[in-house]
Amino acid sequence: MIQIAILGFGVVGSGTAEVLTENKAIIEERLGCEYNIKYILDLRDFPDSPFGSLVTHKFDDILNDPEVSVVAEMMGGSHPAYDFTKACLEAGKNVVTSNKEVVSTFGVELCEIAREHGVRYLFEASVGGGIPVIRPIINDLASNQIGKVSGILNGTTNYILTSMRDQGASFEDALKEAQKLGYAEANPSADVDGIDAARKIVILAALASGKLLDPKSIPTEGITKITLTDTKIAQEFGYSVKLIGHAEVKDGKLLAFVSPRMVPAANPLSRIDGVFNGILVSANMVGDVMFYGPGAGKLPTASAVVADIIDIIANRNTEPKAIVWEEATDADKMAMDAYECRRMFIVKNDGGTLDAIPAKQIISTDDACGLLTDAMNETEAKAYAEKLGDRLLSVYRVL
Amino acid sequence: MIQIAILGFGVVGSGTAEVLTENKAIIEERLGCEYNIKYILDLRDFPDSPFGSLVTHKFDDILNDPEVSVVAEMMGGSHPAYDFTKACLEAGKNVVTSNKEVVSTFGVELCEIAREHGVRYLFEASVGGGIPVIRPIINDLASNQIGKVSGILNGTTNYILTSMRDQGASFEDALKEAQKLGYAEANPSADVDGIDAARKIVILAALASGKLLDPKSIPTEGITKITLTDTKIAQEFGYSVKLIGHAEVKDGKLLAFVSPRMVPAANPLSRIDGVFNGILVSANMVGDVMFYGPGAGKLPTASAVVADIIDIIANRNTEPKAIVWEEATDADKMAMDAYECRRMFIVKNDGGTLDAIPAKQIISTDDACGLLTDAMNETEAKAYAEKLGDRLLSVYRVL
Repeated sequence: MIQIAILGFGVVGSGTAEVLTENKAIIEERLGCEYNIKYILDLRDFPDSPFGSLVTHKFDDILNDPEVSVVAEMMGGSHPAYDFTKACLEAGKNVVTSNKEVVSTFGVELCEIAREHGVRYLFEASVGGGIPVIRPIINDLASNQIGKVSGILNGTTNYILTSMRDQGASFEDALKEAQKLGYAEANPSADVDGIDAARKIVILAALASGKLLDPKSIPTEGITKITLTDTKIAQEFGYSVKLIGHAEVKDGKLLAFVSPRMVPAANPLSRIDGVFNGILVSANMVGDVMFYGPGAGKLPTASAVVADIIDIIANRNTEPKAIVWEEATDADKMAMDAYECRRMFIVKNDGGTLDAIPAKQIISTDDACGLLTDAMNETEAKAYAEKLGDRLLSVYRVL
Repeated sequence: MIQIAILGFGVVGSGTAEVLTENKAIIEERLGCEYNIKYILDLRDFPDSPFGSLVTHKFDDILNDPEVSVVAEMMGGSHPAYDFTKACLEAGKNVVTSNKEVVSTFGVELCEIAREHGVRYLFEASVGGGIPVIRPIINDLASNQIGKVSGILNGTTNYILTSMRDQGASFEDALKEAQKLGYAEANPSADVDGIDAARKIVILAALASGKLLDPKSIPTEGITKITLTDTKIAQEFGYSVKLIGHAEVKDGKLLAFVSPRMVPAANPLSRIDGVFNGILVSANMVGDVMFYGPGAGKLPTASAVVADIIDIIANRNTEPKAIVWEEATDADKMAMDAYECRRMFIVKNDGGTLDAIPAKQIISTDDACGLLTDAMNETEAKAYAEKLGDRLLSVYRVL
């Protein structure tokens, strides 16, 4: 009998208990082995929950119980989630998590501690919620060198952008609606400022390169400045504005950033709408593959957490295949300035000349003109933006 | 040193040799272990290939070489591919394959032989070419009960249907173009008659249910009868005509079939265009997830074959987790007659009454009227079709 402990009985923690209970019969049949949830750690009590009797307020109950071999950390935030994870791994317990903040910040150290202690630290649910993406990248693309990863990694912002495009809602109104529906938090900063997407893209970048960037250090721009003028111009071109986490590995150097981008209709990410996420991976043998599904939510995210628990139980008698990451140093990093892509300049439709911009295609509405250029790097794009001065409304990278 | 043999040096076989060679350094680093291609079995010689010296015409060279522990079968067809696979498994060699005909026809027996002999029989490349789908379903959706799988499983037919929709090409012209580009064979029957898709959907259905249906026994309809009238009516509704392999498990009963279907724009499969494939899986905890990518082609398919080879080498010292399938009996099968979905009737626009059909929405063009109904079962749909008699041009299941 495998004994499991759950740290944090919030949305994902309670979902994990539910998946483990609801699908217990089929999971145990697949595993050929029984399991039990022995503890749930939370500051609160849950007298009305069927799992209420499992609640403990003392982490040491779990840490010191030699029967517990699998710990699922779904507390969120860095502390004490990181500290508890470290203690569990050092005590020889396997840990699974949905906590992108901890994985993106402390992943190098925690993977190394897991390796030293011969246990597993798995985090499928930390990127893309329920979407199978981390294990498929590690296992199914193992025959490939990954060149690029582009993803719609945050369901809240994608919901807001879809409302702006399809309902013509302003950013503020779309955010309010998302909050009403429970898709956005009262303090939406981690989502709308791109912080959540930045954490996820550094995890994906580490899978592609073996180097973990500091999520706070990567260029990160959210969706708060996107206007309806921008989304309308995008539509005129047949494009969609999406918040994209992008990573690429070139000549051994790694670049990752988060920004709103113009996504052409031919790119499969352009049709990932609402709260769904999509992760497009370009690799040298397979070409482009995409993983699509619910990027958040109680049961979808729990589905991925439990997949990790099953992985651990199924392989409990075999030596763990360690994930080995290093902290990215300056020598590993590609400068953002050199990043080349097509650009879309959106300029006031004031009758003035647009000759300053080497546009390949221009589309105008009453308010604004959209100018689509060939590929140029960041330095060039900034120089053109400066030339436009006050007339520039915004400039987008094209995916 | 792991010794590998390749059976069949056609498109996928030569691609496999190329991936194993091209990415040798990174694959060996990931594995912490070296490998070598020792034999390539083919009836032909390849004096100009860098792999030419590895060619043997005698299967027994491979079978009787105890050094060969991994055999990649990419011969196509049932015989001798099945016979060679069986012999290799019985000789204690692991086998990987891209051969959907063999897996869908002999999968139960071959998985069982692999189990008995403590070796692995893996077939990621048999469905969806390079798209990670089989291993993600087994591992990442292990916490779920799978209810439905719908897939665009054949790139040739999807290329033809995309040309018909986007270029207004007739089926015959689009097929000729696909043949010219090498996407379709001189004898295109396996693709355009849905036979290839039927093999793939029974494999996916077996992953969902543990029961393997006879691919020849499932209702299978190809794309040869689809007209430009149909694709135009579809577009008027904002739908796309796609060849869909569909499987579902309900109350322990399994149904699988292949047919052209009307796919609404909101369904992510509607935007899977050209030679790409997409597999949408609905499971009880995660909801809908989709896997997208190149469903065929030399290097993409080889990427999946080599992922299986890597899986075998990485786990060579651990006991194989057997895939256990049973042949589906009549008691396991759901009757097609009971299958319920919305329908689209396409009727000549002859000014006659359309009252016989309980349409929720009607769109007319010069030639034809499209009538979209609520869900009805097959028996009901046939009865309505009969009422329309000669006036009926076609009737589609809606996805």
